[in-house]
Amino acid sequence: MNHIASPDPAVALRDQARAARIAARALAGSSDAQRLEALLAAARALRGAETAILSANAADLAGSKAKGSFLDRLRLDRARLSAMADGVAAVASLPDPLGRVLAEWDRPNGLRLRRVSVPIGVIGMIYESRPNVGADAGALCLRSGNAVLLRGGSESARTAVEIHAAMVAGLAEAGLPDAAIQIAPTTDRAYVAAMLGASGAIDLIIPRGGKSLVERVQAEARIPVLAHGDALNHSYVHQDADPAMARRLLVNAKMRRTGVCSATETLLIDAACADALLPGIVAELRALGCRCLGDARARAILPDLDPASTEDFHTEWLDSVLSIAVVDGIDAALAHIAAHGSTHTEAIITENADAAARFLNGVDAAVVMWNASTQFCDGGEFGFGAEIGIATGRLHARGPVGLEQLTSYRYEVIGTGQVRP
Amino acid sequence: MNHIASPDPAVALRDQARAARIAARALAGSSDAQRLEALLAAARALRGAETAILSANAADLAGSKAKGSFLDRLRLDRARLSAMADGVAAVASLPDPLGRVLAEWDRPNGLRLRRVSVPIGVIGMIYESRPNVGADAGALCLRSGNAVLLRGGSESARTAVEIHAAMVAGLAEAGLPDAAIQIAPTTDRAYVAAMLGASGAIDLIIPRGGKSLVERVQAEARIPVLAHGDALNHSYVHQDADPAMARRLLVNAKMRRTGVCSATETLLIDAACADALLPGIVAELRALGCRCLGDARARAILPDLDPASTEDFHTEWLDSVLSIAVVDGIDAALAHIAAHGSTHTEAIITENADAAARFLNGVDAAVVMWNASTQFCDGGEFGFGAEIGIATGRLHARGPVGLEQLTSYRYEVIGTGQVRP
Repeated sequence: MNHIASPDPAVALRDQARAARIAARALAGSSDAQRLEALLAAARALRGAETAILSANAADLAGSKAKGSFLDRLRLDRARLSAMADGVAAVASLPDPLGRVLAEWDRPNGLRLRRVSVPIGVIGMIYESRPNVGADAGALCLRSGNAVLLRGGSESARTAVEIHAAMVAGLAEAGLPDAAIQIAPTTDRAYVAAMLGASGAIDLIIPRGGKSLVERVQAEARIPVLAHGDALNHSYVHQDADPAMARRLLVNAKMRRTGVCSATETLLIDAACADALLPGIVAELRALGCRCLGDARARAILPDLDPASTEDFHTEWLDSVLSIAVVDGIDAALAHIAAHGSTHTEAIITENADAAARFLNGVDAAVVMWNASTQFCDGGEFGFGAEIGIATGRLHARGPVGLEQLTSYRYEVIGTGQVRP
Repeated sequence: MNHIASPDPAVALRDQARAARIAARALAGSSDAQRLEALLAAARALRGAETAILSANAADLAGSKAKGSFLDRLRLDRARLSAMADGVAAVASLPDPLGRVLAEWDRPNGLRLRRVSVPIGVIGMIYESRPNVGADAGALCLRSGNAVLLRGGSESARTAVEIHAAMVAGLAEAGLPDAAIQIAPTTDRAYVAAMLGASGAIDLIIPRGGKSLVERVQAEARIPVLAHGDALNHSYVHQDADPAMARRLLVNAKMRRTGVCSATETLLIDAACADALLPGIVAELRALGCRCLGDARARAILPDLDPASTEDFHTEWLDSVLSIAVVDGIDAALAHIAAHGSTHTEAIITENADAAARFLNGVDAAVVMWNASTQFCDGGEFGFGAEIGIATGRLHARGPVGLEQLTSYRYEVIGTGQVRP
């Protein structure tokens, strides 16, 4: 068991991180076959522990003072647990992210150099109520050869313990060390503070949760953080857009799911086509329950739009609300995005390849799209198979973070006795 | 001029970082031809400003209370200035690091995805006395499309201002914004503190200097840092090493230059060959002025070795001193390195390919070498053309940091109207 009886969260973290470093070395030296075996065994263990996990979850739910969507995120049932186990097994179907030769070249002195993917090391995962994060993150870290310290929310603590036990059962079956996947022995926030200060002991922190969690982690961390910040995404309808495609993409980008980070929050539309296209787009969005706010030029076309303030154009709605601005061409669209965007996902809709190229090269975002719904910004949709989150920083990884982004690299230098002059 | 008259270092930094962000966008949209023109013009301007730069440097030297090696690092002469200009021009001869398609694939729904290299954005460079860092870092950041804020040491402030003026002259000649390369308007340490806290305004901090500078930056920074930590490198002579090669490599790895981070600090040698090889290696090192310390087993072979304490095996000498331990094979060598190494550069010397593979895969280091001198850990020797430093962290970049490591990436998603189900 990884449950350390220490009363001091900082001491507990220190001891767990040391054990994780040793486990990370063992994982780095393990075969992919072993890691696959552990994943499949963990998936079986999750299914086998259905009664224990659902009972623990019922106790968590009974003990929670939360309501509504928070409780829904916390709740497991047989179908969700089965999907969780499927998710763990699915990570075993992806290609091995380790040992890939990323580059290889020879030097004039005969040295051969190779850059090869290796695990990052020890990852600290800080999350909130969703119990599946423990299984997903455990599986992705395991496959990529990283040890992980899981610190979930106190509301889902009993569920997290049972899920963790199943993951550890998988490790044991494959002969891999328990300490490769550890769970915080306390919900004391001092443990989180200790994680964030564990320079040299934890290599990377990944927070998953609401804005306040992410902001606290970014403000306090003394070690690298891969985090998801704002997602104020724009879809820009260029004057050469196909009208039917523009309408279809906008409706999907805004309304497929409104609470996700890939949703479009602002529509920019060229003045040259706004008269013709805006009424139809707004009518269809409204029919689906979307509230539309417009700037003065949009309201000149559709006077019954609610007025959009400057603040509205800075607002990530995560709801059935869309801000609309009429712009004069690509440069104006780029200027609006530079002023209001969050460098997450930005899309242009046009049949004009030159315009698309100008937009793609001119916009600063982790993901730029041409004639596609912004809702495609997702590790699964990118073909990564699974994602541990989406990163909005500019270092190490941007966009969806899958197995490949959970690796680092080393250089191998192969000589025949060369000395440096 | 970028010299802001503000008395408040935090305000000055804020204003410079804002200007840098705008300049970074302009750089991201510039052509490589423009960036090349700016580099070549800056190299010419450095040569043209010889009198001004050397006078400023003479004033810095006259005003400095430092001595010895510190003064030598600060000193410029015609040859060093010419080499600096050559270095700036040489960055123009490297391949364009931007717009490289790092990966490209299609999804079953017809979406085409591309991962494309882009600039990081705004880089903060904090360095000490060497005036050439301003030119080198300015050139590398410019070529990679990043704006840079340079904050050098107070002892070289006059020199830094003149070098910066030449770099800006290059920018102006190519029609690129001044603010792409800025210099701190004050040597107040509060400016550094403001840089380290400029989350969202500066994307990456690169410290170049002594251990105390790097440690301060790592402890205080709220933004990603690419830094060089310890470099306690080992060369391991395996029992199947070629004796002449082992001697040649050890002498070079330890003594070519002793003050560099690629120097070998500890020799590990298999017991099976230590009797035969150690006396010759030590004799040659001693003839070159190297002091050799040995563990008990090494001293059993060479009783006149100074005794090496546990602390000595944790010491990065950066001097003509070598710690020596006799080990029993690869696993013992790996265990010693895991306990004492700094994950920088580790080398094995052997004719046995299986042994080499076990070592390369089993050691945790940014650079692992087989039959080569550790002194090859260098951006120039790797073929990067130039380096801004060496990174010992595990995120974003490890090992020598050249143009390629100064880039981030974005995803381009090209569709034909796909919506997400």
